[in-house]
Amino acid sequence: MIKVGVVGGTGYTGVELLRLLALHPQVEIQAITSRSEAGTRVSDMFPNLRGRVDMPFSEPDFDVLGKCDVVFFATPNGVAMTMTRQLLDAGVKVIDLAADFRLKDVAVWEKWYGMTHACPDLVEEAVYGLPEVNREQVRKARLVANPGCYPTAVQLGFLPLLEAGLVDTSRLIADAKSGVSGAGRGASVAHLLCEASESFKAYGVSGHRHLPEIRQGLQRVRNESVGLTFVPHLTPMIRGIHATLYATEIKQAGDLQALYEARYASEPFVDVLPAGSHPETRSVKGANHCRIAVHRPQGGDTIVVLSVIDNLLKGAAGQAIQNMNIMMGLEETAGLEQIAILP
Amino acid sequence: MIKVGVVGGTGYTGVELLRLLALHPQVEIQAITSRSEAGTRVSDMFPNLRGRVDMPFSEPDFDVLGKCDVVFFATPNGVAMTMTRQLLDAGVKVIDLAADFRLKDVAVWEKWYGMTHACPDLVEEAVYGLPEVNREQVRKARLVANPGCYPTAVQLGFLPLLEAGLVDTSRLIADAKSGVSGAGRGASVAHLLCEASESFKAYGVSGHRHLPEIRQGLQRVRNESVGLTFVPHLTPMIRGIHATLYATEIKQAGDLQALYEARYASEPFVDVLPAGSHPETRSVKGANHCRIAVHRPQGGDTIVVLSVIDNLLKGAAGQAIQNMNIMMGLEETAGLEQIAILP
Amino acid sequence: MIKVGVVGGTGYTGVELLRLLALHPQVEIQAITSRSEAGTRVSDMFPNLRGRVDMPFSEPDFDVLGKCDVVFFATPNGVAMTMTRQLLDAGVKVIDLAADFRLKDVAVWEKWYGMTHACPDLVEEAVYGLPEVNREQVRKARLVANPGCYPTAVQLGFLPLLEAGLVDTSRLIADAKSGVSGAGRGASVAHLLCEASESFKAYGVSGHRHLPEIRQGLQRVRNESVGLTFVPHLTPMIRGIHATLYATEIKQAGDLQALYEARYASEPFVDVLPAGSHPETRSVKGANHCRIAVHRPQGGDTIVVLSVIDNLLKGAAGQAIQNMNIMMGLEETAGLEQIAILP
Amino acid sequence: MIKVGVVGGTGYTGVELLRLLALHPQVEIQAITSRSEAGTRVSDMFPNLRGRVDMPFSEPDFDVLGKCDVVFFATPNGVAMTMTRQLLDAGVKVIDLAADFRLKDVAVWEKWYGMTHACPDLVEEAVYGLPEVNREQVRKARLVANPGCYPTAVQLGFLPLLEAGLVDTSRLIADAKSGVSGAGRGASVAHLLCEASESFKAYGVSGHRHLPEIRQGLQRVRNESVGLTFVPHLTPMIRGIHATLYATEIKQAGDLQALYEARYASEPFVDVLPAGSHPETRSVKGANHCRIAVHRPQGGDTIVVLSVIDNLLKGAAGQAIQNMNIMMGLEETAGLEQIAILP
Repeated sequence: MIKVGVVGGTGYTGVELLRLLALHPQVEIQAITSRSEAGTRVSDMFPNLRGRVDMPFSEPDFDVLGKCDVVFFATPNGVAMTMTRQLLDAGVKVIDLAADFRLKDVAVWEKWYGMTHACPDLVEEAVYGLPEVNREQVRKARLVANPGCYPTAVQLGFLPLLEAGLVDTSRLIADAKSGVSGAGRGASVAHLLCEASESFKAYGVSGHRHLPEIRQGLQRVRNESVGLTFVPHLTPMIRGIHATLYATEIKQAGDLQALYEARYASEPFVDVLPAGSHPETRSVKGANHCRIAVHRPQGGDTIVVLSVIDNLLKGAAGQAIQNMNIMMGLEETAGLEQIAILP
Repeated sequence: MIKVGVVGGTGYTGVELLRLLALHPQVEIQAITSRSEAGTRVSDMFPNLRGRVDMPFSEPDFDVLGKCDVVFFATPNGVAMTMTRQLLDAGVKVIDLAADFRLKDVAVWEKWYGMTHACPDLVEEAVYGLPEVNREQVRKARLVANPGCYPTAVQLGFLPLLEAGLVDTSRLIADAKSGVSGAGRGASVAHLLCEASESFKAYGVSGHRHLPEIRQGLQRVRNESVGLTFVPHLTPMIRGIHATLYATEIKQAGDLQALYEARYASEPFVDVLPAGSHPETRSVKGANHCRIAVHRPQGGDTIVVLSVIDNLLKGAAGQAIQNMNIMMGLEETAGLEQIAILP
Repeated sequence: MIKVGVVGGTGYTGVELLRLLALHPQVEIQAITSRSEAGTRVSDMFPNLRGRVDMPFSEPDFDVLGKCDVVFFATPNGVAMTMTRQLLDAGVKVIDLAADFRLKDVAVWEKWYGMTHACPDLVEEAVYGLPEVNREQVRKARLVANPGCYPTAVQLGFLPLLEAGLVDTSRLIADAKSGVSGAGRGASVAHLLCEASESFKAYGVSGHRHLPEIRQGLQRVRNESVGLTFVPHLTPMIRGIHATLYATEIKQAGDLQALYEARYASEPFVDVLPAGSHPETRSVKGANHCRIAVHRPQGGDTIVVLSVIDNLLKGAAGQAIQNMNIMMGLEETAGLEQIAILP
Repeated sequence: MIKVGVVGGTGYTGVELLRLLALHPQVEIQAITSRSEAGTRVSDMFPNLRGRVDMPFSEPDFDVLGKCDVVFFATPNGVAMTMTRQLLDAGVKVIDLAADFRLKDVAVWEKWYGMTHACPDLVEEAVYGLPEVNREQVRKARLVANPGCYPTAVQLGFLPLLEAGLVDTSRLIADAKSGVSGAGRGASVAHLLCEASESFKAYGVSGHRHLPEIRQGLQRVRNESVGLTFVPHLTPMIRGIHATLYATEIKQAGDLQALYEARYASEPFVDVLPAGSHPETRSVKGANHCRIAVHRPQGGDTIVVLSVIDNLLKGAAGQAIQNMNIMMGLEETAGLEQIAILP
C-alpha cells in the first residue's frame, strides 16, 4: 500500500482528491492537514465522505508527512514551495496541485503570481506532470508540478497540430469555458449561485495566470515562440472545461481525424471522438478523461478543436493520481476507473 | 462472473444501471436490448460509456436473455410483465425497475397504471426489493420488484417511527422534492431546461402512482391502515430526492436519534446523520446511500424526518444492484462503493 | 413626484427596489446610501441599472434623507431602528424591508434577533405591511414593517382557511422552499453556486426567524394561539418561494375554490388559480404577484395550499412599493405592472 | 393605438413578444393565432400573462389580421413567406421574426433552409431590421426581416472594426454561446434539463444557418467578401448570448474604446462598457440592450470584442418591437424601458 499525505484538503481539489484516494485500491491515507480546520472530521465538512474518510484534519506535522511515500499539495499557490524541500530530503515524492512548480521561468512565475519563489532550484528539477507529454520524466520524478485545468484541456487539444507542424503558431486562439468549481471554495460574492448562475461572462481577457503556462507547454513542442490569445469564460455549471481552439493551417494537414487518433491511440485518458462530433463536458463529469474532436469548418484553412475535461479530475485531482500511479510504478489507470455520471 | 441482461437501456435508469454494471467486478453484461435503438452502439447514445460499454443495443432475444443469470428491466411500466414468466421458467432471476410487480393489490395497480395486469400470480410471488425491510425474502427471490424512488426515500424515513408505534398513522405527511431525472428521458416540453430550471412547483397533488406504493409499505409495518398525504414537487436539478416527513407523536418517543441509529446500525446504505443535521441531496449524488436526519422542532409533538437519496441510485439502479447482490449471494456492497460527487 | 431615499442599496433587496423605483412613473430617487460603497456608482455595482440609476452610493446624510417623502431601509436587521425616529420626526414616512418592526412582542424579537431593540414604542406604532390584511392601517401609517418573504407566502396561503375557521389551528404545517437570493448577497461558502446548485436541503428546522412572524400573523386572525411547524428549504434557483401548506379540516369547508376566489377577488396582486392547478414559481419571477391553488387530495380532510411569490418582489421590494403606493395615495399598482419573465 | 396581430404565439419568441406588447402603452393586440392551440387561452399556456393577455389563441383569419396595422410572425421558418404578400397588399406592415426574409441571396437561403422560397421578390423588398445599421430603411419599410439572435450580437460587436477598416476581414472568428431558449420550446431530448444543464458543448461547427446571415451583414459594410469562422455553443442557462469575437488588426487602430463609444453614442440600445470590462449576459436579461466591451490583450494585434444580448429581447422580440416603433413613427424606446432583472 502506498502511504499518502494530503496537505490542504478543504478546497474542491482537495475533496476530489480525497474521493479518488479513498477509492484507490493501493492507497492508504496517512494524514489530511489543514491549519484552519484542524480537529474537524473531514466527513463533517464533506458529508459525501462519511464512512469513507472519517479522520480529522490535522496540523501539518513533518513527523507524519515525512513517513509518507507521496505527499499531495492541494493548497493555495505559494505553500508547497515552503515545504517541498524538507519532504524531498526525507525521500518523499511530492505532487503539487497548485502552481508553484509549473513555470520554468522563475521571473515569469514571480510576475504572474506576485511572490518571490522560495526554491528556484526545485523549479528546475520539477517535472511538468502532463503524462501525455512527459510520461517518462514523471516516472523518474521526485517532484511533479500538476498542470492547471485550462492548460491541460488546451495543450491536449493543440498538441497534435503543433507536433506535426501544421499550423501558424504565431496566431493561436484558445476560447475556454469553465464551470464555477474552477474558482475554488472560498467565500466570494462573484461565485454565489445568484451571481454566477443564469449568466455567462468572460474574465481575465487582459491576462490570466494560465496563459504563460499554456504558452510554455506549446513552445516546448518545437522549441519556438508561440503567439496565443487565451480568453477564459465562466459558465453556469459546477464542473467542466470546454476549450474551443482555433488555428490556421499552413501546411496541407491531410486527414486530421487520423492524425489525432494516431497521436492518442495508446493514451488511456484521451479519447478522440468520431469525425463530426461535439464533445459535451458532462461526458467526462467525475471521470479522468479528456475527449477531443477536430473540425475543419466549410473545408477552409481554420482548424477548430474541441476539448473537454472535468476540471477537478483530468484538470486537477485525477491527473494528480495518474501522476502518482506513474511515479510509483502502479498501473496508470489504478483508482481512475470512474465512469462519468450522466445525466 | 454473473451473466446479466438489461432490457430497455435507453432511459436514465438504464444508463445508470449500465454505469454501475460496468463498474461491478463480478458482472458480465450479455445484452442490452432496445427495440427502438437496435444497432446503435450504447456509447454513441451515452458517451460517458465510451470504452466501457461499447456493444450495440440489440432486439430483445430470448436465446440470449434466457442464458443470463439475472435480467433487469429498465423499461416503461407494462413491459416486464409480458416477458418475466418466460425468463423465470428458464431459471433466470428478474429484477424489474418499473412498477409492474410493486403493488400486491392487482386491482389497485390496474387502476393507477391504467392497464390490465398480465400475470397476477407473479405479482404475488414477487418480493418488494427494499432490502432494509425484506432482505431475507430478496435473498430467496426469483423475482424482485425494485421500489420506486419516492417510496424508497419516504419509507426509509418513516419506518423507525412506525415500527416503534410512536406516531399517529392516520395523518402522515410526505412532502417530497425530486430532481428532474425522475421524469425520465422522454422528449417533453415540461422538462425542457427552459421550463424546469429556475422554477419550482408541486405536481400530482390530487394523486401520484407512488402514493399507493408508499401506503402499502407503511401499512405492512403494523398491518394497519395508514392515512398519508403525499405531495411531490419538481426541483430544478438533475438528481436527488429530498423527502420531508411529518408525523404526530402519540407515545413518548424518547430519544429519536438513538431510535434511528439503532434501526439502521447494520445497514450499509442508510446513514443516520448526527442530531440537528440537514442532509443535502448532493451528499448522495452518484452513490447508493440514503441519509436521514430526525428532528422534533421546538420540542413539540410534531416529528420531522429529512431523508435524501439519489433517485437514480438508491431510488433505482443502485438499489437494483443491491438486490442482485443479495439474490446472487454476493457481498451486498459489491460494485456500489461509489462516493457521492461533491461539488 | 414622490421623493424617495434608499438606505442600504447594495443587497439583492436593494437592487430590486432600485429597479422598481427607476421604473415607477411617480418617483424621484434622492439618495441611495451605503457606508461601505460610498462613492461607487450604483450602476458600476449593478450593470443592469446602467443609464437608469447612475448616481453614486452616498454616506447616509440626514439633510438629504430628511427631505424625502419616503425612506426605504434595505439594510441588515438592526439598522432601521436606529434612524427611524429622526426621520419620522422630520415628517418622513419609513418603510423597513428588514425585520426591525415586524414583531409586536419586543421580547420575542430580541430573542430571535439577538439584539436589544432601540425603540419599542415605534414597534407598537408600526403597521405590518401586508396590504391584503392591513390595507387601511397602511394607508394612515408613518412607519411600515414590510413582511418577510416566507411570511408573505405562508400567510396569504393560510388566511382564507383561518378567517373562515375551517381548520385545526393547533397543527398547521408550512413546508416552504426558497431560491437562494433569499440568503442575500453576502459572501458565504454555503451559497456559492458549487454548494447550492444541484442540491436541495432543509435548514433551520429547529427554528427560523420567520416562524414567530408567521405565527403572529396567523394568531391575529382569530385572536387565538396557533401551532405551526415551519420547515424552510433551499432550492437551487435564484428567485422564488413555494409554500406547501397543510391543514386539517375541522368544519365542512364546502367549496374551497370559491372561498379563495372570494377572499382575493379584489386583490390586485393575489391570483387564485383554477381548481386543480399547480403554480410554478417562474409564473411570478420578476412580478409582484402571489399565485395560489387549493387542493383537497383524495377528498380527505387534509387541505393542501400551494402559494408562490418572487421573494424579491411580493416577498420584499415589490411589496414595499405597494405599501408606498398605499401610504402616498397613489394607485396601488403604480410601477408594479411588470409581467413575470417566462422562460 | 397601434393594432397588432401575432401569428404563432406559442414559442419562446412568441410569449416574450406578448409580454412586451402587453406592456407597450401604444399597442392593442387584435389576435394571437396558433393552429395547434386555437381555443386555448394564452394565459393558460403562459401563466405569467394571467390578467394581462387572456384572449384565446385563434385560427389565423385574414379578416382580422388584414385590419391590423402591424402583424408579427413568430412562426417556424417558411410560414411568413406564405402569408406576407396578402397582408402587404392589404396595407399591413409585416415583421418576420423567423428567417424567411433575412438572406438576400435566395439560392443561399434555399440551400440553408431546405425549402423553395415562395416570394423572392419580397425578399428583395424586405429590410433587414438591424436598426443600428438600417434605421432609415426600416422607417420606410413595409416588410422587415428581424435579425437572428447570434447575428445581432456578432454584427453589433464587429461593426465598428469593419466600418473603420481596421481588421483583416478574411479571418474573423465568432465564438458564440447561447442559453437554451434559443433552441425553442419544442419537445426535444437534447434540450431537457437533464441533458442541457450542468454541461457545455459546441454544436453546428460544420455549419449553422446564422453563418450566411452574419456574413451577409459583414460583407455589406465594405462591400467585400468576408471570411468568418462561426462556432455556436450551448450554455446551461435559459437566456442570453455571449459572443466572443476575434479579429486581427491590420491598421493602427488607435483608441478602440473611443471608436466604439463614438459609433454607438446615439444608440438607445447599445451600451459600450468602460475599458477593461467583461459584460455578463445577466446584465441584459429581460431587457433590449446589447452591452459591448473591446479589448486588445497584452497589447498585441488580436482584438477581442465581447458582446452580450438577451436572445429573446434584442435577439428577437425586443428588436421586433424596436422595429415596429421605428416603422410606425413611435418613440424608438416605447415599451422597451424594461431593466434587466438581476439577480
